[in-house]
Amino acid sequence: MKTFEKIAVKDGARTELHDALHLTGAEISVNALPAGASVPFVHSHKQNEEIYCVLEGCGVIEIDGQKEQISAGEWFRVAPAAKRRIFAGDKGVKYICIQVKQGSLGGYTADDAIIG
Amino acid sequence: MKTFEKIAVKDGARTELHDALHLTGAEISVNALPAGASVPFVHSHKQNEEIYCVLEGCGVIEIDGQKEQISAGEWFRVAPAAKRRIFAGDKGVKYICIQVKQGSLGGYTADDAIIG
Repeated sequence: MKTFEKIAVKDGARTELHDALHLTGAEISVNALPAGASVPFVHSHKQNEEIYCVLEGCGVIEIDGQKEQISAGEWFRVAPAAKRRIFAGDKGVKYICIQVKQGSLGGYTADDAIIG
Repeated sequence: MKTFEKIAVKDGARTELHDALHLTGAEISVNALPAGASVPFVHSHKQNEEIYCVLEGCGVIEIDGQKEQISAGEWFRVAPAAKRRIFAGDKGVKYICIQVKQGSLGGYTADDAIIG
């Protein structure tokens, strides 16, 4: 496996990075929903925690039937079993979704880094 | 642990999300380096793969002594053992860094999702 791999993400409905960057600890997607659109289904996960970042626009995420407002600059975590669905607001919404295995992180930052 | 947690990331040199969102599978930071600045040290990791997204601006990442250009819209993966350091370009650089344990992801997307 290469030490460094890079791609440019172009505008589009959805770009998945796992295969493109040969990721081994996460799947990451960059998503865009136009105004009034939504992910076409509710879903939950068996093992994976999802972390989202709203890059542009705003919308609503429905979590177990409860609506939460989301807008650019916000980050949120959704537990695996939660049933979720994202709806775009009136100017659309662009967001990142990061899928990682719940409980998989060991040490990080100071505990995992080697300086120099 | 809550099903859903959300925060707004404000402008600043560095915001770390692990504790703020009670993440269990990743550490994520949102970072800004002004023009001419750099991360003040070279570092590598013991176990963690890092995935970066450049949100704004451009710069250079030095990987094991080799310089690579980075700019807004690009995503890249850095293997744990690679020695890395980021330098901001002439308008600064804003980027996300996602730290996950190498090899930790099991199933994902269709293999991990439950529809409905």
